Amino acid sequence: MSSIVTFLGKGGTGRTTSAIATAKKLAAAGKKVILMGQDSSPAWGMALGIDPSTEPQSVSANFAAMQLNTTVLLENSWEEVKRLEAQYLRSPILKQVYGQELGILPGMDRALALNTIREYYQSNQYDVIIYDGSGGIDTLRMFGMPEILSWYFRRFRGIFTESDIVKALSPFVQPISSAVLNTAWTTADITENTDNPASQMLEKGTEALSQGKVWGYLVTTPNPIAVATAKYLWGSAQQVGLSVGGVLINQGSITDSISADFAPLNVTELPNFDGSNWQTLMDGLPTIGEEIDTPQPIEFVMAERKIKVFLPGFDKKDVKLTQYGPEITVEAGDQRRNITLPPAWRGNSVTGAKFQKGYLEVTIG
Amino acid sequence: MSSIVTFLGKGGTGRTTSAIATAKKLAAAGKKVILMGQDSSPAWGMALGIDPSTEPQSVSANFAAMQLNTTVLLENSWEEVKRLEAQYLRSPILKQVYGQELGILPGMDRALALNTIREYYQSNQYDVIIYDGSGGIDTLRMFGMPEILSWYFRRFRGIFTESDIVKALSPFVQPISSAVLNTAWTTADITENTDNPASQMLEKGTEALSQGKVWGYLVTTPNPIAVATAKYLWGSAQQVGLSVGGVLINQGSITDSISADFAPLNVTELPNFDGSNWQTLMDGLPTIGEEIDTPQPIEFVMAERKIKVFLPGFDKKDVKLTQYGPEITVEAGDQRRNITLPPAWRGNSVTGAKFQKGYLEVTIG
Repeated sequence: MSSIVTFLGKGGTGRTTSAIATAKKLAAAGKKVILMGQDSSPAWGMALGIDPSTEPQSVSANFAAMQLNTTVLLENSWEEVKRLEAQYLRSPILKQVYGQELGILPGMDRALALNTIREYYQSNQYDVIIYDGSGGIDTLRMFGMPEILSWYFRRFRGIFTESDIVKALSPFVQPISSAVLNTAWTTADITENTDNPASQMLEKGTEALSQGKVWGYLVTTPNPIAVATAKYLWGSAQQVGLSVGGVLINQGSITDSISADFAPLNVTELPNFDGSNWQTLMDGLPTIGEEIDTPQPIEFVMAERKIKVFLPGFDKKDVKLTQYGPEITVEAGDQRRNITLPPAWRGNSVTGAKFQKGYLEVTIG
Repeated sequence: MSSIVTFLGKGGTGRTTSAIATAKKLAAAGKKVILMGQDSSPAWGMALGIDPSTEPQSVSANFAAMQLNTTVLLENSWEEVKRLEAQYLRSPILKQVYGQELGILPGMDRALALNTIREYYQSNQYDVIIYDGSGGIDTLRMFGMPEILSWYFRRFRGIFTESDIVKALSPFVQPISSAVLNTAWTTADITENTDNPASQMLEKGTEALSQGKVWGYLVTTPNPIAVATAKYLWGSAQQVGLSVGGVLINQGSITDSISADFAPLNVTELPNFDGSNWQTLMDGLPTIGEEIDTPQPIEFVMAERKIKVFLPGFDKKDVKLTQYGPEITVEAGDQRRNITLPPAWRGNSVTGAKFQKGYLEVTIG
C-alpha cells in the first residue's frame, strides 16, 4: 500500500522545496516515489529542475514527477463519463459535448487531483505519493472530500426517498426507464443503489484516508504569522482525519515557544537551502511517511461513553458542537465534521462536553 | 459602482501586506474601502492588527475588514435555498437539513466568496472592494466562474432540450408539477427559464466582470520562480477577463529583465516593510483600482475578420485553439475560454491563427 504525504503551511515557507527534498531522500533510500504538483505554472518545474509533464516523468532513479493539469484531467474524466453514459442510456446525449471545450470551475482542480491520487494509490506502482498542493485549507478540503461528499449523498438520499417528489415520480419511473435507459431502473435503484462507480470511488477514497495513510507535515518559518498559520492547519488537518507527523522549521531556529506551540509533535530545524544543496537538506529532514505515534484524530472510549476529538491549535471559543439525531457535528477552523454515533449509543444525547489541552471530550448520556 | 481589486502572485511575496496597504491608502484618500480575507485562520487578523469578524468591522476611518468564513456563509446561503424551496414546493423537503451540519466541499469557498463580493458590489456601500484571496489560480477560477458556469448552463440546456430524456419526460411534467409544485411548470420552463435567482446572480456577476471592474495587481520578488509565477498568472488573468493594472516588486529591485518580462505593464518597486511602517509602504504604492490604459483581454476587429486575444506570459506551445460550431475555445495556462463568434461570422470557420508578442490572432474565413 502506498503512503500519501503532503506539506502544509503558509505560502513561501518552503513547502515545495521540502516536498522535493523528501522525494529525493526516499528515492535514494530505495522507495519508489511519485511527486504530484498541483501548481500548473512553469514555476513548478523550475523548482524541480525539469520541464514537467502531465504524465509521470523520471527525475532520477526511483523518483518520478507529474504536474496535475486540470484541463487534461477533465478531458480524460469526461471521456469516462461519456463511456458510462453510453452504457446506461439508449441515446447518449453527452457525446455532443467535447472534453476540449469544458471550462474549469472552482473545486474541479481538487476533485480531479484527488481522483488522480486515488488511481495511483490503488495501482500500487509507487511506495510513496507526495502531493505538493497549495498547502492550506484547499488541500484539506480535498482530502476531506470523500467523507463529506458521502455524508451529503447519505443525508440527501434519505430525505429524497421520504419526499413527495419521489413518491409522485415513482409510478412514472418504470415507463420512462424503458423508453430511455438501456436497463430497467426503479426509484429504489436511484435512491438506494450504492453499487455505482461514483459511490465506489468515494468509498475507496475514504478507505485510504481512514486507514491513516495520509501524512501531513507542517512547514513554517519562525515568523509569528507563519507559525499561527501552521498551528491552524494542524488542527484543521485533524478535522479531515489526516495524521500530522511533525513540523519543519525553515529560515530560522526552533524557540521554546515554537516547541510548546506544537507539542507533542516532533519539530525539526532544516538547514539553509541555497537552491542547489539538496543533499544537505535531505540529510536534515526527519523520517517522513512512516508510522509514528501521533494522537488519533478521533477516539471512541466505549466504557466511559466518551468521544475524544483531538483538535490542537484551536481555542475553546473556536470549537462548536451540535447534535442532530444519531450524528454530532464538530465545527472548528472553518470546517465541519459529522460523526455518527456508534449503534450502542443511538437515541442518546450529548450530556457533556469540555475542551482542554487540545482535546474535545464529548460525553453521551 | 464599486471597483474590485485583488493581488496575484506566489505565496510569501507580500500579497496580503500589499492588500492592507492599498486599503489604508485608498481610505486615507477618502474612499470607502472594504477588505475581504479568504484566509479563515487567525494569521489573517495578525497581519491586519485586529481580531477579525465575519461581518464588516471598522479598522480605521473609511476602512472596514471582514474575514470570509465558509461555514458561516454556507449556513446563510442554505437558509436562502430553503426559503426559495418553500416558495416553489408544496412540501419542502430541505427544511429537515440544517445549515449547521453541512460540510465544506472543494469549490464552496470560492463560490460563496464570489457571492459575497457580488452582494457588496451590488449594494454600492463601498467605493472599493479589496479581495485578499489565495492569489493564485484559485482566485482566477473564482472570477471566471460566472462566465464558465453560464456556458455550462447554456450548453447543457441545449442538449437536454433536444434529448430523448426530456422528450420522454415531457408528458409527465404537468401531472407531476401539480402534485408537487406550488406553481404549474412545463418542460419549457425547466429548459428555457432564465428568470430564476441562480441565472440572475450569474448574470450580475458576469456583468461586473465584463465591465472591467475587477483589477488584478501582480506581486512578486525578484526571485525567478516568483517572477515566473507572476507572469503565468498575468496571462491566466486575461483568460478570465481581469484587467491587470501593474506589478509590485517586493524584497528587491527592478531589473531590466523584470521590466521586459512585464512590458507594457507599469512596474513599481515597493519600499521595505518591517511589519509596522505602513505609511512608507502606502506612499510607495502606485495608484490602484482606477481606469488605466491596459490591453483589452479580447478584441473583435470586424473589418479584418480577426479576434485578438491578449495572452501575455505564455509561449506559443502553451496556447491551443479549437472550434465547435459558433464557438472557439482558447486553452492556455490550464484554463479554457469559450468565445462565441459574433452573429455576422456564424457558420464560418477559423482560417488562420498566429501567436506573437503575447497576442493570439485568430482569422475567421
